Amino acid sequence: MSHDINSIPHRRYNILTGEWILCSPHRTKRPWQGKTEKDTTPKKETYDPGCYLCPGNTRSTGDKNPDYKEPYTFINDFSALLIDSPVATQENGLMKAETEIGICKVVCFSPDHSLTLPLMEEEDITKVVKTWKKEYAELGSQENINYVQIFENKGAIMGCSNPHPHGQIWSQMSIPTEIEKKSKHFKEYWDKNQSSLLGDYLKQELEAKERIIVENEHFVAIVPYWAVWPYEIMIAPKKHQQHIGQLNEEEEKAFAEILKKLTIKYDNLFETSFPYSSGIHQIPTDGAEYPEWHWHMSFYPPLLRSATVKKFMVGYEMFAGPQRDITAEQAAQTLQNLSDIHYLKQ
Amino acid sequence: MSHDINSIPHRRYNILTGEWILCSPHRTKRPWQGKTEKDTTPKKETYDPGCYLCPGNTRSTGDKNPDYKEPYTFINDFSALLIDSPVATQENGLMKAETEIGICKVVCFSPDHSLTLPLMEEEDITKVVKTWKKEYAELGSQENINYVQIFENKGAIMGCSNPHPHGQIWSQMSIPTEIEKKSKHFKEYWDKNQSSLLGDYLKQELEAKERIIVENEHFVAIVPYWAVWPYEIMIAPKKHQQHIGQLNEEEEKAFAEILKKLTIKYDNLFETSFPYSSGIHQIPTDGAEYPEWHWHMSFYPPLLRSATVKKFMVGYEMFAGPQRDITAEQAAQTLQNLSDIHYLKQ
Ligand SMILES: O=P(O)(O)O[C@H]1O[C@H](CO)[C@@H](O)[C@H](O)[C@H]1O
Ligand SMILES: O=P(O)(O)O[C@H]1O[C@H](CO)[C@@H](O)[C@H](O)[C@H]1O
Repeated sequence: MSHDINSIPHRRYNILTGEWILCSPHRTKRPWQGKTEKDTTPKKETYDPGCYLCPGNTRSTGDKNPDYKEPYTFINDFSALLIDSPVATQENGLMKAETEIGICKVVCFSPDHSLTLPLMEEEDITKVVKTWKKEYAELGSQENINYVQIFENKGAIMGCSNPHPHGQIWSQMSIPTEIEKKSKHFKEYWDKNQSSLLGDYLKQELEAKERIIVENEHFVAIVPYWAVWPYEIMIAPKKHQQHIGQLNEEEEKAFAEILKKLTIKYDNLFETSFPYSSGIHQIPTDGAEYPEWHWHMSFYPPLLRSATVKKFMVGYEMFAGPQRDITAEQAAQTLQNLSDIHYLKQ
Repeated sequence: MSHDINSIPHRRYNILTGEWILCSPHRTKRPWQGKTEKDTTPKKETYDPGCYLCPGNTRSTGDKNPDYKEPYTFINDFSALLIDSPVATQENGLMKAETEIGICKVVCFSPDHSLTLPLMEEEDITKVVKTWKKEYAELGSQENINYVQIFENKGAIMGCSNPHPHGQIWSQMSIPTEIEKKSKHFKEYWDKNQSSLLGDYLKQELEAKERIIVENEHFVAIVPYWAVWPYEIMIAPKKHQQHIGQLNEEEEKAFAEILKKLTIKYDNLFETSFPYSSGIHQIPTDGAEYPEWHWHMSFYPPLLRSATVKKFMVGYEMFAGPQRDITAEQAAQTLQNLSDIHYLKQ
């Protein structure tokens, strides 16, 4: 059976989660009559007196931001998780619950309200990387904090309520579902092959050279073979590392460089400030060893055809499983062909 | 440990998928400064000459709809799945794919362009139920069709590109991820208890009476204890049934009644044509027996606070797991208190 199945409906297997995604490459010619989004890329000032993340401004709690010059972190004023909750479980027949304990923080990437990662200087992105490292170590060493989720929601379409460049960190007692799924597959492969699942996959990608978008000595950014979102990307270190705390200075810079290059490509794709959710998956901070893990950062961007037409993950996707139209290879080719210079600076 | 954990951050366990959801009830007071949606509930005509689903109109393929008076189904003009694909697999190291085979259909609920389920007569909704039954049986009996996913995307916010009342059916060779997850938990419970997981849970709900929204002799609609979406609902038959093909005439009517009552409550919640994705989960059509399964229909509506403010399932949700602010009990109470008469008819 040697059909090239890439041009007909097929499913691809996600080796990290054990789940399949449906790919319908013949369907890219479908006309779009549905909802379009507003292209919300406004010209921004470097300082906005009404922004609760800008230096020196007062937040809704009455707290005042310092006049920060470097990345600035603080406890989320509307934290979904609290550190002083009791530890308790509640079981009533088939209804099972337990308290969750955690700390939610906001990370301002820059004092400059007008910036985003692709528009920041590489050395300033390096400072963001250092901040993530510091928070991962500090939060992770606290009692009852067994997992630290670093993420960014960028753009109004991704539920981001403030355009000031910032991300979030939610850290918690329990290990989240998505991490448990991946841990299971990393572990099974490690036990069987004494080798890293993601590391071995990256070797294949580095040889195939088909889905690589940006690369440097220490990192590679690829459209994973099993990508769900149209222009989904995974950044991973070439070295087998379990968490970002293991990055040395040179690797921090290399990571920042990849982040900048990738997000410039993203902005250039539809000449818009490209929305996405990004997040880092790495090992729990519960003190156990996870030699099988290979940390990585993923970008899930919703846009499909233009700055205003997104992919909806709805009916079929919610009840059956994810579906996409363009293949990972088509997406990779489109991204590869884009300029490395930001469209606003061309 | 007898804390009432419902007012503090906690996780609830979904017995059907084995996954947890994070609930942050203290956070409902958070102000919203983010994206708002347009309330797209336009006054609609009963016939729209530009609508490709209205009776007698010509679709983009050149096919002409018959002058149908009852629910009308046809093969999706832009099917994500095709029935004549070859069966093939492709494995290259850690890259694994296989062809998918299937049939995608569109189900027009009514010839009347202006309607939606809550505005339709109960006897016309019964005809939709009969159509679902017929399609489930017909598609399911075809070679290579092992699962039939019936769903509806309602509203532009849910990626629906045409307001004409309609749903979809995607049927396919492989068993989708979400079905496999549930099958696993149904089976484990059945083997251990010789009893139905969902049936036993429903008994608990029928006794607790806390999360029931609508009920009749044959059906109950509840906000499940582990609801993810703010106003998520599950409709299930009280009798232990594996699929909708087992509904008798009386049960078909009872199902239609529940559908109408529930969707009226939904429209009344924010006085808007309430958007959602709904879908029926039932047994595969691969010929195997699944005595452990109990079919059910779920509604995943995105709106959170008003017709224009939705819940975003983004960063944390994508990388860690689902999160909600209001508890299932709060959502149930709000829905319970709503009128049974549609706001447009009050
Ligand atoms: O087939 P439609 O209505 O054009 O498309 C809609 O439903 C599909 C099935 O849930 C999704 O894959 C699409 O993203 C969505 O826009
Ligand atoms: O905390 P924010 O930015 O107000 O909220 C945003 O991110 C959270 C974490 O992904 C989500 O739970 C919210 O739905 C979203 O609006």
